Amino acid sequence: KMLRGVLCTVLFVGALPSLAEVSQGHISVVLLGATGDLAKKYLWQGLFQLYIDQVSSGHSFTFHGAALTALEPGQRLMFDVLKKLACPPDESPNRCAVLKDQFLKLSQYHQLKTAENYTMLNREIETLLRQEGLKEAGRIFYFSVPPFAYTEIARHINSSCRPPPGAWLRVVLEKPFGHDLESAQQLAAELTSFFREEEMYRVDHYLGKQAVAHILPFRDQNRQFLDPIWNRHHVERVEIVLKETVDAKGRTSFYEQYGVIRDVLQNHLTEALMFLTMELPANVNSAEEVLQCKLQAFQSLRGLEKNSAVLGQYQAYASQVQEELQKTQDYISTTPTFAGVLIHSDNLRWEGVPFLLTSGKALDERVGYVRVLFKNRAYCTQSETLRDAGHSQCKAKQIIFYIGHGALNTPAVLVSRNLFRPVMPEGSWREAVGQSDLRIFGQPLSDYYVYSPVKERDAYSVLISNIYHGRKDFFITTENLLASWGFWTPLLDSISHQPLRLYPGGVENQHLLDFEMVSGEVVFTLAEPVQMLNPNRLMPSDYRIIQSTFRRSPLVSAWSEDLISQLASDIEKTASRTVARSGQFHLALSGGSSPVVLFRQLARHHYAFPWKHTHIWLVDERCVPLTDIESNFFSLHNHLLQSVRVPYFNVHPMPVHLNQRLCVEEDRGTELYAKEIMALVANASFDLVLLGVGTDGHTASLFPQSENGLEGAQTVVLTESPVKPHQRMSLSLPLINKARQVFVLVLGKGKHDITTLVSRVGHEPRKWPISGVSPSSGQLVWYVDYEALLG
Amino acid sequence: KMLRGVLCTVLFVGALPSLAEVSQGHISVVLLGATGDLAKKYLWQGLFQLYIDQVSSGHSFTFHGAALTALEPGQRLMFDVLKKLACPPDESPNRCAVLKDQFLKLSQYHQLKTAENYTMLNREIETLLRQEGLKEAGRIFYFSVPPFAYTEIARHINSSCRPPPGAWLRVVLEKPFGHDLESAQQLAAELTSFFREEEMYRVDHYLGKQAVAHILPFRDQNRQFLDPIWNRHHVERVEIVLKETVDAKGRTSFYEQYGVIRDVLQNHLTEALMFLTMELPANVNSAEEVLQCKLQAFQSLRGLEKNSAVLGQYQAYASQVQEELQKTQDYISTTPTFAGVLIHSDNLRWEGVPFLLTSGKALDERVGYVRVLFKNRAYCTQSETLRDAGHSQCKAKQIIFYIGHGALNTPAVLVSRNLFRPVMPEGSWREAVGQSDLRIFGQPLSDYYVYSPVKERDAYSVLISNIYHGRKDFFITTENLLASWGFWTPLLDSISHQPLRLYPGGVENQHLLDFEMVSGEVVFTLAEPVQMLNPNRLMPSDYRIIQSTFRRSPLVSAWSEDLISQLASDIEKTASRTVARSGQFHLALSGGSSPVVLFRQLARHHYAFPWKHTHIWLVDERCVPLTDIESNFFSLHNHLLQSVRVPYFNVHPMPVHLNQRLCVEEDRGTELYAKEIMALVANASFDLVLLGVGTDGHTASLFPQSENGLEGAQTVVLTESPVKPHQRMSLSLPLINKARQVFVLVLGKGKHDITTLVSRVGHEPRKWPISGVSPSSGQLVWYVDYEALLG
Repeated sequence: KMLRGVLCTVLFVGALPSLAEVSQGHISVVLLGATGDLAKKYLWQGLFQLYIDQVSSGHSFTFHGAALTALEPGQRLMFDVLKKLACPPDESPNRCAVLKDQFLKLSQYHQLKTAENYTMLNREIETLLRQEGLKEAGRIFYFSVPPFAYTEIARHINSSCRPPPGAWLRVVLEKPFGHDLESAQQLAAELTSFFREEEMYRVDHYLGKQAVAHILPFRDQNRQFLDPIWNRHHVERVEIVLKETVDAKGRTSFYEQYGVIRDVLQNHLTEALMFLTMELPANVNSAEEVLQCKLQAFQSLRGLEKNSAVLGQYQAYASQVQEELQKTQDYISTTPTFAGVLIHSDNLRWEGVPFLLTSGKALDERVGYVRVLFKNRAYCTQSETLRDAGHSQCKAKQIIFYIGHGALNTPAVLVSRNLFRPVMPEGSWREAVGQSDLRIFGQPLSDYYVYSPVKERDAYSVLISNIYHGRKDFFITTENLLASWGFWTPLLDSISHQPLRLYPGGVENQHLLDFEMVSGEVVFTLAEPVQMLNPNRLMPSDYRIIQSTFRRSPLVSAWSEDLISQLASDIEKTASRTVARSGQFHLALSGGSSPVVLFRQLARHHYAFPWKHTHIWLVDERCVPLTDIESNFFSLHNHLLQSVRVPYFNVHPMPVHLNQRLCVEEDRGTELYAKEIMALVANASFDLVLLGVGTDGHTASLFPQSENGLEGAQTVVLTESPVKPHQRMSLSLPLINKARQVFVLVLGKGKHDITTLVSRVGHEPRKWPISGVSPSSGQLVWYVDYEALLG
Repeated sequence: KMLRGVLCTVLFVGALPSLAEVSQGHISVVLLGATGDLAKKYLWQGLFQLYIDQVSSGHSFTFHGAALTALEPGQRLMFDVLKKLACPPDESPNRCAVLKDQFLKLSQYHQLKTAENYTMLNREIETLLRQEGLKEAGRIFYFSVPPFAYTEIARHINSSCRPPPGAWLRVVLEKPFGHDLESAQQLAAELTSFFREEEMYRVDHYLGKQAVAHILPFRDQNRQFLDPIWNRHHVERVEIVLKETVDAKGRTSFYEQYGVIRDVLQNHLTEALMFLTMELPANVNSAEEVLQCKLQAFQSLRGLEKNSAVLGQYQAYASQVQEELQKTQDYISTTPTFAGVLIHSDNLRWEGVPFLLTSGKALDERVGYVRVLFKNRAYCTQSETLRDAGHSQCKAKQIIFYIGHGALNTPAVLVSRNLFRPVMPEGSWREAVGQSDLRIFGQPLSDYYVYSPVKERDAYSVLISNIYHGRKDFFITTENLLASWGFWTPLLDSISHQPLRLYPGGVENQHLLDFEMVSGEVVFTLAEPVQMLNPNRLMPSDYRIIQSTFRRSPLVSAWSEDLISQLASDIEKTASRTVARSGQFHLALSGGSSPVVLFRQLARHHYAFPWKHTHIWLVDERCVPLTDIESNFFSLHNHLLQSVRVPYFNVHPMPVHLNQRLCVEEDRGTELYAKEIMALVANASFDLVLLGVGTDGHTASLFPQSENGLEGAQTVVLTESPVKPHQRMSLSLPLINKARQVFVLVLGKGKHDITTLVSRVGHEPRKWPISGVSPSSGQLVWYVDYEALLG
């Protein structure tokens, strides 16, 4: 009865369909959490906008607000919200007033608490449709409720509120979708037991931001310009940024569990990253093709390590948490409210291009943008003052998807004029008239082509419209969600005890949060002693490199970082001296984790190292294929060889893999290696052997009580390790002791006990092989860091 | 008599040495070409400055101007010049007037034309010294004469004017020192027959420019700041620039023979480049250490190709040449008056950093500078408007050695304030007071620390002082000179018929001369059809890459250079496609000389090549050790592998050298290789095999009538070559024919006969193995250059 009345009124307004035309069917929208903050602020307005836009689409609508509150007070609360709905600026006030009136009549409140409530709702919808003689097109359930309530609501909908066959069900879910990979998987598994993948619409409201939503269409429509430059040869860096001025006050009970990475980076900024880095599918409107390309792009991301991020917390956060969560004064929160993360993609298109994702609360401005900065490859012969402002190739080249707020205060797409004039869809974007005095990203606005949306729409309006249209590409599928959590979870785990930089907030932050990329990692630019929130405050830092003796040989000791620098320099010096003397340098390197840091140091900082004349030998190897991640050579290759220029002929991996099998005695790998050494190394006396020490006192792959290698004439031996992989190949102690120099590197607290022990024992190689290292005519030097030395 | 008078006067001035103290000995300076332009403009003034500076050094001086002119008119000409000598601004007018008077008295004119003239000069010097009772310290002969006169003058000096034992001889030579490597070698050889290396002071007056001369000291004194950043990880690009507003009018008889590269780039800009790129010697004041580091730096430079340069000529040049050299109206000059050259150094420090050398006449401003631009690795969280201007890490970071003229109009060293405050020698450089409104290299002057010389000295004064002090590091040694010519000559040869871009001159040039780096080459930015001066108008440039068929397979043909480019692109495309499909790319390469050009092309121009996923196999190998210069693998390594990043595991040389012996059947190298192929290459079907053709019709190492490899099941075989080294290992024809693609590359006139023959014969692999190449399901493409195809 009510519905018929409405339809008549609608017809009266004119230009609306006749009853006969209303044959597309009826849509019931159920908003769960109808009186909550999000609903008040965005969702009802979005539903009203949907109604305005689609009233003449041929579909009829009813809107059902629902909450736990009882019928009467709930109804009152809800209609208080509905009465405040605003008319969109592009709508005539008269038409809007009529439509708002209709919208109110089509809206109804329900208490949804028990199973019976859901059954009742279902019955009401069925009755209404039967009465009006309408076919059901579908039902939308919008979950604007906390995630702990998801499972039960989902169960009720699935059991009592599914529409009849032929009509669709769409459930709309709001984040958070878990707080790490495991919890996300669990939640996804629960939901999947109630809904099919195509029924679920997970909202990331960034995908409804007009500038973000336009990234893929922009790439598609400007293929002709972007194809040659959308790659590592032309892109210098990409910044994806969401800065907020507000802090977490009043929301710390939520925020303290999540922090900035889970709140913003894992979802919003990552989605923007994907739109930039994914390969373009043939059809950018195909949700399935987009999804597949996105998943591929996720796979190309290089794994994050703890030094991939810089983290901060605004100073007032701790007291806000203490107050709101009733914690004591000494409670320390490790939740970051600021993060800058450096991401690399390892596919051919993007290898080496830095993607910087940054977000924080209590910053100096509110702004969001995605900025692609191109490399400057031009030399402008004409002097600066004479250059043609608009098109000089020597000006910065950028493409910016400006999400909103900030200096521009509107969504926009900006393209440097010296790049190209972009193709933009005429109906929805128009060229903006520039404010001539505004500077943006270092350049006057007049240096850009600037486009802004013809109609500015808030993200929820855009998303609700896309739910209605079934545009699944605007939503996060389960695979997409889990790929993102899979990417972020290792970082979240590794930084959970990282120190945070405290910042005062707002403009007071000054340069405190500026950060820089150094060798694939990020660090804060200001290294001066600023207040750090460091759970391990008690670190001593006034030790220097000390020199002394250890087991009657020279000892070099320092904090590990300084020690590694010193060792790398000493190796380079030895190498240069040896090459100057004999034309070549034979260096035997050990496996294990300590040398990896050394390898990186050598690869990155020693440009004058005579690699061309250096022969690389292995001290020991695990019996696995060389390309196995466990192989010592594989690690050496990844961390050193692929960054320097050692001739192929000078690289001597141990032949552990012969005739498609590993370390089989008959294959005589040890003999082969011994012969190679004899043939190339004068007197089989290596110029430098680098060793480590195990907690059991082993060195090379010579373990306590080993049958081979501790003595005797054999120079290369097969041995057994107590830990996996058991089989090893190793240089023998007698061969090691023929070297001109032997450096032993010992790092970390875990080595303190063995270091202490070894400092006291005599020559007992069967018990502690390391004690047998004693070059017959060469020199031995110990490099032991403070942690190993002092515990 | 004259000298004694002078000394007395000098003593009278005060603070000057007594006769007894004048025990350092006497120095005779002979200026040849004493009345020429350079002498008038700079040299006499420089000598006067030397006298002012050194009058109290303990040395006594006489100055001998010399020319071909007879005594009396010569004398008059010379003294006209001397009378105009200016007093340096930092000298008191009184003292200067006295010193100038003395200087005139110490100066004398000589006609130096015949052998007798030289004998006479020598006698006069001896007589004078005897009369005054002075010990001879040394003689300086300054050659300010055209180079064709060098040899004869040198002969005379050597035979008649050498000082007695114990005194030194220094001959100062002015460029040009040849116009290519050969002529420079010849001139050097002639001079070396008269003078010892340490006696020759070759002037490059840029080394006397204060900002250039300070590059090495600056690097030395600021090691602490520069050590971490003076490398490819931090330097974005380097610009070395000398722009002139003047043109060549009045000097075309010289200029037409040389052009901008020989005039400016080969010497001045190259020397600055060396100061930047060379490793720092332990002692930067040791001429010998500096020289050795410089020579090493020369060796690291990557060879230039014709596309390493963009060239131009100002429009009026042609008519100036026609007029001054009495040429007809249709005379076309191919001499460049503008050049932009992209240089790369292949050492580890600088790999990948572009060094842009630019110079030209008739440009819009006169300025010289060396600019090191650092990479921007920072992200500044604070918004632009709030950043601290001086120290923001997001501003450009630069170090500039400002040679002179331009906006600053003084020599200067500029260091961005966000880099570091440089250490500068206090006595000679001082911090300049900034002109606040000046912008330089895109930034206000206040963004830099700016230092300028305490005393501005012209280059010749600096150099003459250094000649006096025997500072050979300020001069160009023979080795240095020949290294530079060795570097530039191939470019000069290859561009002698390159088209030149015509430019109107001055501000009218607008963006005409802007250029860009693209894949390791440079091109003018404006590609619109502008007037090009192309001397090769009649070259068959309307031949294009032609596509047709050969033996019923596709044929690609072109001039060899274009053909190689096309082939390299096709290989890259195949590689990318294959990697996209299967994750890896198996490429089998042949030995021989033709592929070397291809390897170089691939190494230098194909940055997007998926090397990381490429496996490199050998089609055939000679039975020699892999490090033998005859080894195919050795050549592949030198020309390709050492320039790209193929993982060690993906490189598969043929095992011709096992158990310290070569291709012995029992060692089963062929089996080993076959097994490796089977293990890694799906179906033993290579993705791409590159073959060549021998004049006898052989391909791979499969020779006519070969017993092995033309048929049968064996996939890798040992074969015999009719030429040395006889023993070979080769893939078999059946294995080759399993490949997905086979490209055959044929280059050069010498292959014309076999090409013609092969085009006619059928499938006769026993006679002509190449005729047996016929992939069973793959594709065959012929790449034959015009010379091989058309003879």
